[in-house]
Amino acid sequence: MSFERDNIHRMQGYASGEQPDDDNTIKLNTNENPYPPAPAVQDVLSNFDPASLRRYPPPTANAFRHIAAALHGVERDNLIATRGGDELLRLLITTFVDPGEHIAMSTPSYSLYPVLSQIQDCPILQIPLGDDWSLAEDFCQQVNAQGAKLTLIVNPHAPSGRLLDRNQIAHLAANLNSVLLIDEAYIDFVDPELNHDCLSLIQQFDNLVFLRTLSKGYGLAGLRFGYGVATAALIQPMLEKTRDSYNLDLLSQTIACAALQAQTYAQHTWQQVRLERQRLATALRRMGLTPADSQANFLLTTIPASGTIDAAGLYQALKADGILVRYFDQPRLRDKLRLTIGTPTENDQLLACIAKHLTNSTNV
Amino acid sequence: MSFERDNIHRMQGYASGEQPDDDNTIKLNTNENPYPPAPAVQDVLSNFDPASLRRYPPPTANAFRHIAAALHGVERDNLIATRGGDELLRLLITTFVDPGEHIAMSTPSYSLYPVLSQIQDCPILQIPLGDDWSLAEDFCQQVNAQGAKLTLIVNPHAPSGRLLDRNQIAHLAANLNSVLLIDEAYIDFVDPELNHDCLSLIQQFDNLVFLRTLSKGYGLAGLRFGYGVATAALIQPMLEKTRDSYNLDLLSQTIACAALQAQTYAQHTWQQVRLERQRLATALRRMGLTPADSQANFLLTTIPASGTIDAAGLYQALKADGILVRYFDQPRLRDKLRLTIGTPTENDQLLACIAKHLTNSTNV
Repeated sequence: MSFERDNIHRMQGYASGEQPDDDNTIKLNTNENPYPPAPAVQDVLSNFDPASLRRYPPPTANAFRHIAAALHGVERDNLIATRGGDELLRLLITTFVDPGEHIAMSTPSYSLYPVLSQIQDCPILQIPLGDDWSLAEDFCQQVNAQGAKLTLIVNPHAPSGRLLDRNQIAHLAANLNSVLLIDEAYIDFVDPELNHDCLSLIQQFDNLVFLRTLSKGYGLAGLRFGYGVATAALIQPMLEKTRDSYNLDLLSQTIACAALQAQTYAQHTWQQVRLERQRLATALRRMGLTPADSQANFLLTTIPASGTIDAAGLYQALKADGILVRYFDQPRLRDKLRLTIGTPTENDQLLACIAKHLTNSTNV
Repeated sequence: MSFERDNIHRMQGYASGEQPDDDNTIKLNTNENPYPPAPAVQDVLSNFDPASLRRYPPPTANAFRHIAAALHGVERDNLIATRGGDELLRLLITTFVDPGEHIAMSTPSYSLYPVLSQIQDCPILQIPLGDDWSLAEDFCQQVNAQGAKLTLIVNPHAPSGRLLDRNQIAHLAANLNSVLLIDEAYIDFVDPELNHDCLSLIQQFDNLVFLRTLSKGYGLAGLRFGYGVATAALIQPMLEKTRDSYNLDLLSQTIACAALQAQTYAQHTWQQVRLERQRLATALRRMGLTPADSQANFLLTTIPASGTIDAAGLYQALKADGILVRYFDQPRLRDKLRLTIGTPTENDQLLACIAKHLTNSTNV
């Protein structure tokens, strides 16, 4: 006898990115920061008293919320700390979307969104992006016509790296009837000269939520720490009602505080990633590849059909070389690879191996 | 405009136990272990490389599952690791109970159960315990008649400490149509001479799930680590579908492995707690109080109506002394206090203060 709910029985779970067992693999498949977390994290570990784990942790991570709110120029009531950005996504659905109501997203996008929708038994409206990964002209009309209660947009977009600017975000928030989640998992890698800063839009729009994570920008994917920023009216029910009562352990809270305060260190890693993104894109273009313009810590690169090695083949060939990149076996992405920006040394090896395989295949 | 779902709008969130800001308070209100976690936890902190946090953690905590399965003589497929026991409770509801279907519990019990039910928009069937905190004779019939999909039983019971034995658990599992969760948060404090061990019942009953946590027995309430044990058919959908994709950070996984392996240390703390439980109960009875027999790390004690200080008054008087205990302002518990077992020194202070207030009030 199966006890599963029908919607759970029908669905497939989220497929995590490949995790190689050996430390020698150059891992450029899941958009981790190539640099370790700030030295302040080691200081936390060195000074942490294990006996403090005996008691329950601060339930709402107020010390972290205070630091993050100050960093972003918002109030603590505008902020919820979560177990990675993923917990925020789940809380948004649990809090704002009844089973049977629609959740909207552009596609392709983060493959977790449809999984979370199915868990809540919500149909998902997937609106295709344009050839240049831009939103459909009538995106808001389509979402509103379906009566969606939550719209999920990742910005900069994954897997392309394309950035919606502040005006475009404001336009979406103003025209959508739903709660609008802007998933800024990759925001730290946007060029500073763009002066891209959307968080203050929460003062204007009561339906707008921003997701941030320490996974990418702060080199802490293993820590599982993120946060949401929105009007207090959106934050409050997630903070006080639907969040697991002690969602964040004490050690994670302490480390997250230290990492967020180490801004100089973090920003230095972001700048290194941007420089390497530029160098990698230029080098790929010289090889005849066409990486999309990216404001994230990855490049989505088409592998030309003219060669004798295709994207799937190149993915396998790189894997045999000990370099793991991301291949999506799905429509519109089967001729592409997503390459996470690594350290200069890792990127050199990646470029050398790509060059080798493109040349070999041309010569076959 | 409110975006909250109606059921979320209507509900109240879970109220966490009081957390004193100062370190001088004797904290006997939330059933933490009075002893710190095993020295092995310090070893983990000393040897942990922060750079390992750069990558995503093992998604299903397989190293921990392997250790815990071996400890309990079950297979790894019988086990899911969760962010505290609370995450397991949420996953059970998400996975096995459709909105609108009933969840059953005995009452009084863990106040989180009704909160989690409301989040899923499930009515909760609360079946009163007898005067001696025993289950109602027709408990299973009542649950089945309501068509409940999940039954939540904490054993040893909180707040009384009463233990259902293996035969009683087997009877419930055999007679309930629902999934049956036995919340063994306090199981480590059961007297070893009772030979109480129910986990092997999962071989017989396909609807039976046990909850374990490191919060109490292992002195790690601040870590947020628990696990569930059941047939693979019940574990699999929670593990592969409804669980947040990376629910446990790497550092917590590493610490949890070390703490669970330090069985000699943990069992020593349990024995200390049992000895103090016995001593405290005896001393309270000498003062004319009537603590319920308890197999957990707390005592539920009635404050006799004959005195001039009642339970609420004694709670306040102890708080003024710097001792925090648990008072439940709810039916059947208003004449009682729940006292977590502390260290011998803490318990001495508790007893002295209780004696003082009972004497003072008798003299008024």
